[in-house]
This record gives sequence, structure tokens and C-alpha cells, in this order.
Amino acid sequence: MLPFSYNEIHETLQRLAVRIQTSGFEPEVIVAIGTGGFIPARIMKTFLGLPIYTVGIALYLPDHSTLPSPQKIQWIDEVEQKLSGRRVLLVDEVDDSRTTLEYCIRELLAHAPAALGVAVLHNKQKEKRGALPDEIAGYWAGDEIPNVWVRYPWDAEDIQEHDQQVQLKASSPGQ
Amino acid sequence: MLPFSYNEIHETLQRLAVRIQTSGFEPEVIVAIGTGGFIPARIMKTFLGLPIYTVGIALYLPDHSTLPSPQKIQWIDEVEQKLSGRRVLLVDEVDDSRTTLEYCIRELLAHAPAALGVAVLHNKQKEKRGALPDEIAGYWAGDEIPNVWVRYPWDAEDIQEHDQQVQLKASSPGQ
Repeated sequence: MLPFSYNEIHETLQRLAVRIQTSGFEPEVIVAIGTGGFIPARIMKTFLGLPIYTVGIALYLPDHSTLPSPQKIQWIDEVEQKLSGRRVLLVDEVDDSRTTLEYCIRELLAHAPAALGVAVLHNKQKEKRGALPDEIAGYWAGDEIPNVWVRYPWDAEDIQEHDQQVQLKASSPGQ
Repeated sequence: MLPFSYNEIHETLQRLAVRIQTSGFEPEVIVAIGTGGFIPARIMKTFLGLPIYTVGIALYLPDHSTLPSPQKIQWIDEVEQKLSGRRVLLVDEVDDSRTTLEYCIRELLAHAPAALGVAVLHNKQKEKRGALPDEIAGYWAGDEIPNVWVRYPWDAEDIQEHDQQVQLKASSPGQ
């Protein structure tokens, strides 16, 4: 179990923004994959100064069972038209099985952005079911993490208890 | 200048969710006003367990000058159709002049939701240029705050320095 505090995530995204800015890839708009990407994308906006569009995708049902393929919750042809010819940075929370990410990348590539970069807060080091298409301009992960259960602060029922877990992480050797 | 930490906001939204849940109004979906509403809405999702749709509205230009009226950045007829006949909770960051809020409320009401409630993280106590239409099912503010410059953690260039300001707030009389 790997818990992160809001401030840890804020600083990870700050470093991630600098890496993207110095990579040579110059995005014009952010596309956030909802709902996990909403908070990372909004924080990235502070450091990159870009407008955010959102797309809603679900791979899991509320009971945590997995759908056979990602489903569009909110997906807008109008937005895709706005992305055509522009340099887009796709932002999500965690790159887990990579299924949702590949799905979104392929959908967006079909609408001819000038370039498409991909940024995730965390990448789980595991075998991936999805693949990153060769056409993307770059892939950046804020941090590489082990294949364990990640606890994000925005999912915390009790943020004080959550932060105690974060403190324990900091004081324990290894993970 | 009134700074808030992520954890303060998380707990404010937790209390706000309880107030809504015990109000008798039972929302089925959240609509987040972007980009300010993205983080509050995502945290509310943890406590209310509802899907989030987003709309993008801008009243300010990047140079902080004000547009004559709110502009739709991302606004989706498809989403509005999904809202028809449903109980909707509109979520935003701060109720300042109320202009953007009134605009969004009227746009959403035009698409016949079964009910429309409005929740904001903070309400600034000031004279409002916008008005809350009588048709809304309820209005909830996480906290009432004075009419001063609010600093949200997601806008912090340096989150450590920001949290020092939050600590100063806690230790100062007044505020």
C-alpha cells in the first residue's frame, strides 16, 4: 500500500512540468482523462499555464469490476475538433494496465492533433496490457512506482489518517 | 490574503458533502465548472460517490482581465442531454461575483434537469453581480469567507511556502 499526500503530488507534478518544458515538446492544451486526471491536470495547469479540456473514461464499475473495454462517459466531438492541428498533452493519474491510456491516445490520434504527448502522475512498473503507439511525441511519468495498491489523497475518507500513513511510509525502510 | 491547504479544503468538502446528503436533496451526477471546480468536484466524488461531468467556462483572460460575459471553453450538448431529467449538483471553487455561477445555472436549467443544486467550496461575502435563480433546489457553501484574495493550494508555485502562509493564518488572531 503506497499512500501519497497532496503536497507530495503537487511537487511531483511541478518537477514533471519542468521535464516536459525542457523536453522540446511544447503543448498548447491539456486534455485530462476523468476523473483520475482532473486533479493532476489542474495542478499541471499552474506550472504549464495551459487550458484544460476533459474527457471522461471508465474502465471500472463502482464495484471495482473491470469493463471489457473502456467506456466513454463524456467524450466530445467538438473538443476533438478543437484539438485538430494542435499540440496536446494528455494527462492521467496512474498508468496501471495502460488500457485506458492506449484507448484515449488512439481516439485522440484519430483526430489529427499536430502532436500528442502523454503525462501521468505515476507509472506502475508492471507488465502492461496496453501499448503506447509510436506516433506519440513523448511519454513522461512523474514517478515510477512499484505494482502495489496506490492510495491517493483525494480518495481518502479521513485525510488525517491518510497523512499518518504517508508519514509511516516516509519513516519505513524500503517501501 | 487567505490561503488554504489541500487538507483544509478536503475536510471542508467532506463536511459540505454531509450537509448536502442530509438536506433531502439527492443528486445523481456532479457537474464541475472548470477549471476551478475540477479539484473540489473530484474530492466531493469521494464522499458522494457520483460520476462527474465537466463544463469549461472562462470569465477571465490569462492577464486577469475580465471578459464581458462568460465564454464556453468546453460545453457539450451531449452532456446537457444526459442531464435532462436528472438531479444535478453543480460544483465550483469560489462564488465571487456570482456571474459565472448564474450563467452556468441558467444554461443547465434550460436543459430541464429534474433538479439542480449548487455547491461551492467558498462563498465570498460581498455584493454579487449575479443572482441565484429561484428554480434551484439548494445552494451550499463549504465556508463563508471575507472578500479578500483567496490563495488555493493548486495555484501555488511553491507548496511549502504556501503552507507556511497557511500556518501563519492559523496562528494569527482575526481571520
